[in-house]
Amino acid sequence: MGIIPAVSSCHEPAGEDIRPSAVDLMELRKDPITRSWVVVGKQESPFAAGACPLCPGSEGQSKTLLALPAGEPWQVRVIPHFDPLYRIEGEPARTAEGIYDRMDLVGAHEVIVETRDHSRTLAEMSDGEIERVLLAFALRIDDLKRDARFKYVTVFKNSGPLAGEEWPHSHSQVVANTFVPRRVLYELRAAREWYQQRERCVFCDIVSQEKRQGKRIVAEQGGFLAFCPYASRVPYETWIIGLSHNSRFEIPDPSASRVDLASLLGRVLRRLVRIAPAYHLVVHTSPNETQTRGELSGFWRSVNDDYHWHIEILPIAGLINKSYGIKETYFNSLAPESAAATLRGFDSG
Amino acid sequence: MGIIPAVSSCHEPAGEDIRPSAVDLMELRKDPITRSWVVVGKQESPFAAGACPLCPGSEGQSKTLLALPAGEPWQVRVIPHFDPLYRIEGEPARTAEGIYDRMDLVGAHEVIVETRDHSRTLAEMSDGEIERVLLAFALRIDDLKRDARFKYVTVFKNSGPLAGEEWPHSHSQVVANTFVPRRVLYELRAAREWYQQRERCVFCDIVSQEKRQGKRIVAEQGGFLAFCPYASRVPYETWIIGLSHNSRFEIPDPSASRVDLASLLGRVLRRLVRIAPAYHLVVHTSPNETQTRGELSGFWRSVNDDYHWHIEILPIAGLINKSYGIKETYFNSLAPESAAATLRGFDSG
Repeated sequence: MGIIPAVSSCHEPAGEDIRPSAVDLMELRKDPITRSWVVVGKQESPFAAGACPLCPGSEGQSKTLLALPAGEPWQVRVIPHFDPLYRIEGEPARTAEGIYDRMDLVGAHEVIVETRDHSRTLAEMSDGEIERVLLAFALRIDDLKRDARFKYVTVFKNSGPLAGEEWPHSHSQVVANTFVPRRVLYELRAAREWYQQRERCVFCDIVSQEKRQGKRIVAEQGGFLAFCPYASRVPYETWIIGLSHNSRFEIPDPSASRVDLASLLGRVLRRLVRIAPAYHLVVHTSPNETQTRGELSGFWRSVNDDYHWHIEILPIAGLINKSYGIKETYFNSLAPESAAATLRGFDSG
Repeated sequence: MGIIPAVSSCHEPAGEDIRPSAVDLMELRKDPITRSWVVVGKQESPFAAGACPLCPGSEGQSKTLLALPAGEPWQVRVIPHFDPLYRIEGEPARTAEGIYDRMDLVGAHEVIVETRDHSRTLAEMSDGEIERVLLAFALRIDDLKRDARFKYVTVFKNSGPLAGEEWPHSHSQVVANTFVPRRVLYELRAAREWYQQRERCVFCDIVSQEKRQGKRIVAEQGGFLAFCPYASRVPYETWIIGLSHNSRFEIPDPSASRVDLASLLGRVLRRLVRIAPAYHLVVHTSPNETQTRGELSGFWRSVNDDYHWHIEILPIAGLINKSYGIKETYFNSLAPESAAATLRGFDSG
């Protein structure tokens, strides 16, 4: 259960538009200082005890948005989130509250059930099984990007209780937003500025330097590279990226095979889980282009030139001391060169 | 101890400039995508068992940078950090590593011992004791801002093991940086843009709306306001801000008394600790102006017009589910109106 505060109305100061039911409020609010959007006011529903809602046999509890492989018993199944952060119906209705901005919580929030097996983790799956999970990622992103209301679609995975996973049954989540999340917007803007100055993709430049220096590489397979980024925010942060320029995760690259990507992801995860009990994984793909023109500076040009999809994996290895807790400055106790060397040294595939 | 990886050199791919001692590397690195600076490569020293190094009797272990009150046994003492993230000597020496940027770890890193009493928390202190702690904050910020190498000086406090506190003895930390931390830079830029459009301070506008609406106010005292911000990132996030425009925390406002600020901070903390076992507190003050011209867009003008100091307190109330774990989008399960109502309802001062 979420925290339900005891509202003491007798201490409420006088003022206009007091809403006694503020606790029921659920909306997107924009921080006027940092311009990030915050989902506020949602009471978390009780964690359902009893049967796992993601296991075979519970299909009646939810609509199937996608099942793979087609025409056979599902191995990967996509369903609407049971307690979604966003509602799929309606328009975002951006309005002001005085100097502040708010939007209705319109968006998509789905769960990708990655396996029928309640206890099988993504790291334990075969290359073929992981490939099917990645195909589900791509199909859902592609489908949701066709909805003109959405500016950004992504897939993320919280693995392990320390990462805040909602069910122990292996799953990822798909989110489609009516705004571009702040970190992604900075990423898009930085990539655009780099391109405008150099006519090169910053991610391609990173790939090139990582390949040349070698010391932060974890593994390489087919057209894909896994490496610990130069300014890793946490120990063992690992990115997976295509060697060929491609802005869209969901569009297969003709020069690379998704089975290589799946195999590389499996190899990386099997190494990371030896070090960290939990991790976050986020797919960074291009935004829904026709919806984001206003938010990117400079003349209009397709992000396909200057953006490059990648997967970011952030292991959770424990509390970090001596830094700002709120990440105003990151402090990472382990150099990515050391992290990559350790990860390369593991023989787990 | 930090994690010491087993570096397996036989798996190291060939490449230029491999440094075998990468694990000893300690430097600032800039993320080329988001442009945040990350301190990497520091091995954490073992947590000293035995006598508390902050208690009276351990003065011989460290130099005293400031002791209050002057000329009497200290009640508040400022010392260099035992295992600093930054070194006070030298120049930052910004250099390139290929396409990446790095700097030497030049800066100040100090510990403010807030009381002689090993078990007394800031929330438990009298108004007079808290006032002395705030005076120490101000004196150290003012002193370090006189050093032309530093672009930004701040004080933060990690209270409670969940916040990553380093010693149980009540303390804060002072950090002076050769860069402006990313969140602060965005804050400065947003405040400047707001001012350029409206010729008003965004923080003054926030204070004005909060006073008018009332529903997010926690308490008010003298010239100071405590409120839960509209787009609170975590449940019970609380800011303390001066009603009068003033960009510099360290310069006393003639229209307000620091004892009122101390009293208000004590009242807020006594309420928050009833809800959350730990919190982060960060003082946001103006940057070292002469050092930051290049990083603020637009024509040069003093930040004194468009910035406004404030204290941000982020309670740690537990794991947050169903959002991006890495804060690409914040999800706060409790509306700030409800948080403020609960905090107002507590009778703890």
